[in-house]
Amino acid sequence: MKVYTIGGFSEVGKNMTAVEIAGDVFIFDMGFFLPAIVELEEQERNKKLTEKRLRNIGAIPQDTLLDSFNLRNKVRAIFLGHAHLDHIGAVLYLAQRYNAEIIGTPFTIEVLKTMLRDEGIMLRNKLKVVQPNSSYTLQGKNKKYLVDFINITHSTPQTSMIALHTKEGVVLYANDFKFDNNPILGKKPNYEKLKEIAKEGVKVLIVDALYSGSERKTPSEKIARGLLEDVMLTTSNEKSGIIITTFSSHIARLKSIVDFGKQLRRKIIFVGRSLNKYVSAAQKVKICPFYQDILLLSYRKQVESALRKINKNRTNYLLVCTGHQGEPGSVLERISKNELPFSFRNQDHVIFSSSIIPTPITVSNRNQLEKRLKKRGVRIFGDAHVSGHAAREDLRDFITMMHPEHIIPAHGDLAKLTPMAELASELGYKLGKTVHIMQDCQKIIL
Amino acid sequence: MKVYTIGGFSEVGKNMTAVEIAGDVFIFDMGFFLPAIVELEEQERNKKLTEKRLRNIGAIPQDTLLDSFNLRNKVRAIFLGHAHLDHIGAVLYLAQRYNAEIIGTPFTIEVLKTMLRDEGIMLRNKLKVVQPNSSYTLQGKNKKYLVDFINITHSTPQTSMIALHTKEGVVLYANDFKFDNNPILGKKPNYEKLKEIAKEGVKVLIVDALYSGSERKTPSEKIARGLLEDVMLTTSNEKSGIIITTFSSHIARLKSIVDFGKQLRRKIIFVGRSLNKYVSAAQKVKICPFYQDILLLSYRKQVESALRKINKNRTNYLLVCTGHQGEPGSVLERISKNELPFSFRNQDHVIFSSSIIPTPITVSNRNQLEKRLKKRGVRIFGDAHVSGHAAREDLRDFITMMHPEHIIPAHGDLAKLTPMAELASELGYKLGKTVHIMQDCQKIIL
Amino acid sequence: MKVYTIGGFSEVGKNMTAVEIAGDVFIFDMGFFLPAIVELEEQERNKKLTEKRLRNIGAIPQDTLLDSFNLRNKVRAIFLGHAHLDHIGAVLYLAQRYNAEIIGTPFTIEVLKTMLRDEGIMLRNKLKVVQPNSSYTLQGKNKKYLVDFINITHSTPQTSMIALHTKEGVVLYANDFKFDNNPILGKKPNYEKLKEIAKEGVKVLIVDALYSGSERKTPSEKIARGLLEDVMLTTSNEKSGIIITTFSSHIARLKSIVDFGKQLRRKIIFVGRSLNKYVSAAQKVKICPFYQDILLLSYRKQVESALRKINKNRTNYLLVCTGHQGEPGSVLERISKNELPFSFRNQDHVIFSSSIIPTPITVSNRNQLEKRLKKRGVRIFGDAHVSGHAAREDLRDFITMMHPEHIIPAHGDLAKLTPMAELASELGYKLGKTVHIMQDCQKIIL
Amino acid sequence: MKVYTIGGFSEVGKNMTAVEIAGDVFIFDMGFFLPAIVELEEQERNKKLTEKRLRNIGAIPQDTLLDSFNLRNKVRAIFLGHAHLDHIGAVLYLAQRYNAEIIGTPFTIEVLKTMLRDEGIMLRNKLKVVQPNSSYTLQGKNKKYLVDFINITHSTPQTSMIALHTKEGVVLYANDFKFDNNPILGKKPNYEKLKEIAKEGVKVLIVDALYSGSERKTPSEKIARGLLEDVMLTTSNEKSGIIITTFSSHIARLKSIVDFGKQLRRKIIFVGRSLNKYVSAAQKVKICPFYQDILLLSYRKQVESALRKINKNRTNYLLVCTGHQGEPGSVLERISKNELPFSFRNQDHVIFSSSIIPTPITVSNRNQLEKRLKKRGVRIFGDAHVSGHAAREDLRDFITMMHPEHIIPAHGDLAKLTPMAELASELGYKLGKTVHIMQDCQKIIL
Repeated sequence: MKVYTIGGFSEVGKNMTAVEIAGDVFIFDMGFFLPAIVELEEQERNKKLTEKRLRNIGAIPQDTLLDSFNLRNKVRAIFLGHAHLDHIGAVLYLAQRYNAEIIGTPFTIEVLKTMLRDEGIMLRNKLKVVQPNSSYTLQGKNKKYLVDFINITHSTPQTSMIALHTKEGVVLYANDFKFDNNPILGKKPNYEKLKEIAKEGVKVLIVDALYSGSERKTPSEKIARGLLEDVMLTTSNEKSGIIITTFSSHIARLKSIVDFGKQLRRKIIFVGRSLNKYVSAAQKVKICPFYQDILLLSYRKQVESALRKINKNRTNYLLVCTGHQGEPGSVLERISKNELPFSFRNQDHVIFSSSIIPTPITVSNRNQLEKRLKKRGVRIFGDAHVSGHAAREDLRDFITMMHPEHIIPAHGDLAKLTPMAELASELGYKLGKTVHIMQDCQKIIL
Repeated sequence: MKVYTIGGFSEVGKNMTAVEIAGDVFIFDMGFFLPAIVELEEQERNKKLTEKRLRNIGAIPQDTLLDSFNLRNKVRAIFLGHAHLDHIGAVLYLAQRYNAEIIGTPFTIEVLKTMLRDEGIMLRNKLKVVQPNSSYTLQGKNKKYLVDFINITHSTPQTSMIALHTKEGVVLYANDFKFDNNPILGKKPNYEKLKEIAKEGVKVLIVDALYSGSERKTPSEKIARGLLEDVMLTTSNEKSGIIITTFSSHIARLKSIVDFGKQLRRKIIFVGRSLNKYVSAAQKVKICPFYQDILLLSYRKQVESALRKINKNRTNYLLVCTGHQGEPGSVLERISKNELPFSFRNQDHVIFSSSIIPTPITVSNRNQLEKRLKKRGVRIFGDAHVSGHAAREDLRDFITMMHPEHIIPAHGDLAKLTPMAELASELGYKLGKTVHIMQDCQKIIL
Repeated sequence: MKVYTIGGFSEVGKNMTAVEIAGDVFIFDMGFFLPAIVELEEQERNKKLTEKRLRNIGAIPQDTLLDSFNLRNKVRAIFLGHAHLDHIGAVLYLAQRYNAEIIGTPFTIEVLKTMLRDEGIMLRNKLKVVQPNSSYTLQGKNKKYLVDFINITHSTPQTSMIALHTKEGVVLYANDFKFDNNPILGKKPNYEKLKEIAKEGVKVLIVDALYSGSERKTPSEKIARGLLEDVMLTTSNEKSGIIITTFSSHIARLKSIVDFGKQLRRKIIFVGRSLNKYVSAAQKVKICPFYQDILLLSYRKQVESALRKINKNRTNYLLVCTGHQGEPGSVLERISKNELPFSFRNQDHVIFSSSIIPTPITVSNRNQLEKRLKKRGVRIFGDAHVSGHAAREDLRDFITMMHPEHIIPAHGDLAKLTPMAELASELGYKLGKTVHIMQDCQKIIL
Repeated sequence: MKVYTIGGFSEVGKNMTAVEIAGDVFIFDMGFFLPAIVELEEQERNKKLTEKRLRNIGAIPQDTLLDSFNLRNKVRAIFLGHAHLDHIGAVLYLAQRYNAEIIGTPFTIEVLKTMLRDEGIMLRNKLKVVQPNSSYTLQGKNKKYLVDFINITHSTPQTSMIALHTKEGVVLYANDFKFDNNPILGKKPNYEKLKEIAKEGVKVLIVDALYSGSERKTPSEKIARGLLEDVMLTTSNEKSGIIITTFSSHIARLKSIVDFGKQLRRKIIFVGRSLNKYVSAAQKVKICPFYQDILLLSYRKQVESALRKINKNRTNYLLVCTGHQGEPGSVLERISKNELPFSFRNQDHVIFSSSIIPTPITVSNRNQLEKRLKKRGVRIFGDAHVSGHAAREDLRDFITMMHPEHIIPAHGDLAKLTPMAELASELGYKLGKTVHIMQDCQKIIL
């Protein structure tokens, strides 16, 4: 078996791994490197994104690695683990290079379809929907392959670990996930299936190493809900406007926000392009329990008209919008710069149900945003959030449960991958023998 | 009115403030500076503590300030806000200098009594118990004073804000507290009473500034309970010993630990001197709901015999012990050094329901402890904790609710006090006019 | 005597202090708050700066404080300590409000004149040049005042401490300075005069507190020269382009760069608006020893033509340019974005003779710049720099030498001012009595 | 060729690498893991160190790896690169396991002899002295090997890179070093020889990666000298005691201290065991130019008598002592605890010509030390120091100069090794192919 670590092993983003066995190749994820996209858009907003431009700026995985091994025609399927852009964004620009179907859970596929529609891209690849906790059989060159989409928790719905059964053992792709037994929305991790897979024998585990250096168990989404409850229901906000911003793809988080918004007896309005994208997709696949309770706005006129109303009568509304990282062009950023018809007043509340992504540009954007908010007397409530990535002790439980033959840490540069390698060492694995620190565009024979 | 900021204004610890009005003086808190005590004990463990030695090493407030203004004989009462040592520890060595009664809630007074007994100290001062949310009338030189003990939430039971009613307005002593509407144990903050007091008019507010620089609302104890639940009930621990350590005075936290310990169907054993002190005091005043569910051990032989049993049969027990900061001499530290008859095994769990106090010596102690634990293969779960101190947005709500005439930030050195002064500035107060940065041993006339 | 702390006591920037005595008012410095200017320029580059706009965005000191005390007509002089924009920038917009002459050393006044010319502003105030280490006599309402401009070291030439002799004692304005006995350019600190002043008796010292928390002596400029020598003369750069960037006003630093550039036998070209401003001013007042050794370019065509030449023949040149903080619009930033006709090649050297100003926006700008440089294979040499501000042990020597009656820490917000207050406490001063933590727009009577 | 990475690849310390070729094995360095020794000594000071105990606590390299490959009898030589304990400490306990001579420069061998004498250990191995910049020929099983000891700069004298010439190319051991062209003491780096070696062809480079993440050139020792000059000659110290502490093995640094001490016209006294060890060794091999200018004390009575004299007449002396990291038992630490007959006075100077080693225990020790010093009014001058390890840009120059076939980063755990791997990638090397991240006790075939 050969594993090609194409993207996401030298940076956080553009995740893509390929596995070759017996003349068949399978791809896991095809994501964006978002920082490159963000920088691009600042400079050249109006030009259309193309494969070539994205490749030039390093925004998509270097899948030409497969060409260089003459494997392009042997790709049988592209598996998508979940709906985040760093896992599916590059599908739009790369999938058509392969004569292979694209397989994911309903929400993931629906988000992909929305993006294709928005960008006006038609793919010739077949889009195949697989339910969480179900299996799928693929035809390889000479034989059939069974693939399981095993339900797991993360910060977006219907995330799956993907188990590809081969004659040499299972390839288990677990990138990204957390172990959350109180997930607010959706099913719990399917530990039973994982144990079954472990019994069958895992040849190689490709695993989310992002927080492998953090010595704890990642808290449940239930905790984020509790933090939101405190901030929304037990502070003095009767006379204040309330604005909340969080990750648009985090439907469970949005559910908690809506639940508490209803307790506040406020009208709940969602504003922002990416909120519209993810919430609509969730509604289409019937996993958006709060869709009837909110107003979801996307057209510019609708948005401006709504903001004018909220501006006049702010204590009647709860505004949920984009902008938690201070992103240029997001709703919150534009409001803070007086580019939209809503003006902050003294004592308005802005709640960040997110942590700050620790890159200098994001830290600066967010800081500039907060400075503008404070000038207007806004009260800031930060960190009403928990992570969606497994921490060291979750990962230890996971490795112990699965006892794979080989481990390949994924989802980061060397600084992120090495703590996972150290954890594996603690559990008896050997660097270079059974745990492998890989970089982008490398190949390993197992 | 004159306020004397005696201790806790140039360091975190040895809290003590005095107020003089119309020939009467009232003292609020008399605490230890614990770092000085800790360092002392390392060097000279066996000598007895005396007022003189404690004064020499800076471990108790410099209350001789009052002598220098000829006020010693005018002290009418010593009010204690809650049972933490940095608020009541110095009572043992200083109270007898004053002809004044000592007043606090049942738990606070009970802890004080335990300490007096343990140290073999007899005080001539009368110890007066006041129920939370009740009042007390004091005889001054020429007139009577009403004092309210207003129930508030913190990290130990029966914490009170103290309101001293004077002809010039109320002196409100709010040091320490948080606003927790889901406190697990005990009553919620008494907002009604606080609003009443605000209406009457607060002349000066002495206020816990420790986390005034942290832009958020401090999460509820409910969140700490949730974090503990995750760590205790949803990790693989069936074959592991489980040891938990937390603040001994935090009866609510201990209750959560016991609740989950019972769900694990393990025998729960508490070991350590300070755990014994606080839990016994709680039981005496009937606020220890879990006393029947645990075994509370203090005698050395009992402890060693219990540890031997746990060592043999570790999966049957939950051990709650002292040592969350890696303190020399604590139970966890001694176990980690093989000084007690319990040996860690691979995969045992150690849960820290605490954060690390960010002083170099504590960071080092804890780090050394963790290194020893890791050598034995122990799994470490950190940070299952929330703070007991109000953060910036709680403080903003509080100031807005009370609109005191003057604010004196307390509970820290200049680095801690200044963010509170900045917050007050945001709310319209003026540095040097209505918000006052004080240092230890200063006087201000209001 | 009354001191008005108008600007630079709640932020780093817009320094301005006024002193009132016997019907006369004297102003020390009138500076910009540069972050506000930078943010402004990003949004509205083309509009003209006016007093009103600058006031609105908080970019200039709130000198209307003087109006509110009816002191505007009593201002007799505006003293300028040195040529940095955070000390003289607001003179352009505020000086005309006062019927008062402006007094500074030759370099400071020359830089001011250049700025006035560039902005097309005419001031009615008389500009008075005073040589370093000389005195000046001013006519007050009823009496004459002697003022000393005492030579001191900093990161720009001819910096002075200013001693205003009054009947109540000396007002000593020491903001900014360091003690450097090997200053590369210019005279050493005039310790003799300072000791004389101390003998006379200092009533109040307004003092640069920026690095009062740093436990060391600030290293000499000689050290920065040594670091540059290492980086410029002992790395492999024969086949590389070399670009250096540093503070444009730092003529001594530029001298070292030119000295080593000559040893490299490269043609030295200075490019950038602010380099032109400061170097030309230095040349006019005859303190630019390297003027004949460089080509100083400012017109766009000249610059572009020179860059084209350097681009072709890079090993013949040393390019000194603006952009050490990654400032948008600076030469280095524009080169990095391919907006100027010079392209980096693999192994080119970029030397930052500066430290990163620790604000989020600067950290982000610099990080983005470095990312672009690295993409092109550029080698980065950081931190060839020492500070121009006195550290704690310099300040301790200074206070001990001057033993002023009162100390007012300046040049920062509370976080910067408080360590100076603590240092003063160590030396026997009392907070609120003899050392005073002031904020912007406050008055104190001494 | 096979390389065995025995120690120093999973931690900073216990450096040891072995190379096997054609039936011959060569060992490079055998060092201590000092943190393990330090912790040990705190608990069990009086017991004798033995190989077994040191092995148990992980203080010496796991050279049993060689036994497991049946290589113990094939070891022909033990090369020592320099005199630091983390490179030579374990020789005392491990060398006798091998029938192999020990080869190093005069200073290194002299320090080793001193340690053997102090511990009462006799080795059967021959100790062979090789001058810096000279070569040596070794007899292998079937053929002869040429070995060069190439002079290089570091923070102790006569440090060498070691080049072992084999039929497959040169093994170059460069661990530790910096590139310093103004080294104060000793010769400059021998770039000519290195270039010659590069021409011959380097098969594998084992290289000091400690500061490979630091984007700069490491400053010259000349800079440290300048910092010391500032602190010693330009602060107010006429009436103060002056105590300096630095790395005892750093003879060049000590030379600068003595030079400035003489300018101060103070009597210079060196006190402390390790100072005695290194300075005596330097004197024996005639590289201690200041030996006649100092008094070097070691016997307890001498030390105490000298300290008494200094105590009475402190302005006549410069005391150089151990304790820059606050090490328990060091001279400075014992003075600070009043365990020696010298008492600090207000305004005494303590100069740390060192940086703080960033481990929690050292940070805490140093912090406790500084707290005690401050209580006594001592002035602290920190960071008069530069590092002895090459930074990223030095390493880039080095790799470019040597263009080795393979690179093995050494001198740290994964967090230290990975930036070196990234640098190598920037220069065209491939992880796992030509740059190899190794761990302790691994083998690689090249």
